[in-house]
Amino acid sequence: MYTIGIDLGGTNIVAAVVDENYKIIEKAKTPTAMPRKPEEIFDDIAKVSKEAVEKSGITMSDISSIGLGTPGTVNNGIIEYANNLGFDHIPASDMLKERLGDIPVYIENDANCAALGEAYAGCGNGSKNFIAVTLGTGVGSGIIIDGKIVSGINHAGGECGHMVIVVDGKPCTCGRRGCWEAYASATALINQTKEAMEKHPDSIMHELAKEEGAVTGRTAFDAMRRKDAVGVQVVDAYIKYVAAGVTNLVNAFQPEILCIGGGICNEGETLLRPLRRYVEAERYSIYSDVQTEIVKAELGNDAGIIGAAILYTAQ
Amino acid sequence: MYTIGIDLGGTNIVAAVVDENYKIIEKAKTPTAMPRKPEEIFDDIAKVSKEAVEKSGITMSDISSIGLGTPGTVNNGIIEYANNLGFDHIPASDMLKERLGDIPVYIENDANCAALGEAYAGCGNGSKNFIAVTLGTGVGSGIIIDGKIVSGINHAGGECGHMVIVVDGKPCTCGRRGCWEAYASATALINQTKEAMEKHPDSIMHELAKEEGAVTGRTAFDAMRRKDAVGVQVVDAYIKYVAAGVTNLVNAFQPEILCIGGGICNEGETLLRPLRRYVEAERYSIYSDVQTEIVKAELGNDAGIIGAAILYTAQ
Repeated sequence: MYTIGIDLGGTNIVAAVVDENYKIIEKAKTPTAMPRKPEEIFDDIAKVSKEAVEKSGITMSDISSIGLGTPGTVNNGIIEYANNLGFDHIPASDMLKERLGDIPVYIENDANCAALGEAYAGCGNGSKNFIAVTLGTGVGSGIIIDGKIVSGINHAGGECGHMVIVVDGKPCTCGRRGCWEAYASATALINQTKEAMEKHPDSIMHELAKEEGAVTGRTAFDAMRRKDAVGVQVVDAYIKYVAAGVTNLVNAFQPEILCIGGGICNEGETLLRPLRRYVEAERYSIYSDVQTEIVKAELGNDAGIIGAAILYTAQ
Repeated sequence: MYTIGIDLGGTNIVAAVVDENYKIIEKAKTPTAMPRKPEEIFDDIAKVSKEAVEKSGITMSDISSIGLGTPGTVNNGIIEYANNLGFDHIPASDMLKERLGDIPVYIENDANCAALGEAYAGCGNGSKNFIAVTLGTGVGSGIIIDGKIVSGINHAGGECGHMVIVVDGKPCTCGRRGCWEAYASATALINQTKEAMEKHPDSIMHELAKEEGAVTGRTAFDAMRRKDAVGVQVVDAYIKYVAAGVTNLVNAFQPEILCIGGGICNEGETLLRPLRRYVEAERYSIYSDVQTEIVKAELGNDAGIIGAAILYTAQ
């Protein structure tokens, strides 16, 4: 049997047929083209789903379930609120069944889908106790315990990017001050880089940013690789912030594996080696023989689609 | 059927017979009398267990399982490390069975037992998604998800007192800086009170501390009740720190109920009302209809014993 995984994003709608070994057979894609009515978006979700099925050389009768990953809060098949899609209490499960037939439908927050995908089919290698952290525009996270997604009574849980690590610290987009996201996101790293550049007009980072056309999440890392002292400082301070939140998660959950994804994870061991050192020095479980492994996410954008496709396994 | 719950503390060993409705029938108690050999401690655990059974008017054949709550890290019936008992890899499950017969034995960290007790038999009223926070000498926590204790792969999880809320902040007993415990424990409140008293020799807190014989966790609260401006400031700042950690937990777990126990919880609504206000203003789940309830722990010292006695339900 096969399942369909759908990634409903602010930019694109992607559907994929996934087999029992959690492998993608075929994909289909269309722009989300916001702003649009929910009905039109769901028409397109159905269209790309059917397209992916057709490209896979199977029929809808071979599909045993459909999973949809969406931004926002999902409760019992209803997308309660998704800001960047303009959704407010959209009966997504019913809308999918109307268009694709009476097949079991599972709907989940997209970050949670990505965590499930990585846990079962990516770097987690089937791990049942797993946390995925995404260092991107914000800091996303998804928590898997006993093979199930942790989202709490209102399905709004797993928001560890909005864990305060500096009381009364930098303002966060969520309204709190001092959230992990305000220190450990790619956006935060770019701000930290710009602040350091202002203070150090002689840093090589000015040159690198000019070449690149902008200050990016790579600027400080690139400067560090060229032995720029300010670059080294920015990267070290940034990784320390990442480690503060990661250690908090380790102390609370002691997962088997914690993976780091998002743009910044492309730095690979340059990021992970010092991160592991900080966490090792600071975690509470110093007497345990078994410790959380900190690894790089493997599936990239496919994590969310595969995770959506295999939501049936995590019920 | 009945079960036995045992609370192995640094000061006392308490055993209780608990019925199917999670109610304590009878208790027996003996001093832990540290330092002693583990064998002697387990002899006494067996002795008080049998005593509690006898006082309950039943026999060991009426006991369907035994649960033991202990400080430290427990892994598969072995107490891996418990600093204040001097335990290092003690085969507690086997030692209990040798002394009490071949009855199913469950062993867990004491804070986790207390959380389970409150969740099932106390303020949680059977809640399956529950967090217990204890504001005492330190900040303890126990997390219940889907009716089970969350302790991770190495059974050292649930240590949310050692979540950093102020990067590079006040030193914590665990070696990190800026842990929640260093700001929100009763010990931290006493320190915050003393610091404020030093700065404000005119505060009524000097008088209150003299009457009381020492600065305690109540001093600032009592001063606030007498309209002392410095007392008001200390209490408000303290509750804000408590709220920072509570909000972090709510954002990560969105539990049904989060309860506050420990000495400070005796302040009741004086603590809880402003705490709820801070959490409400700061939590991430602003669009959800369902929100975490923040309540006072109900069972006091019995929480750990009842939790140990009902570990069989949480497997």
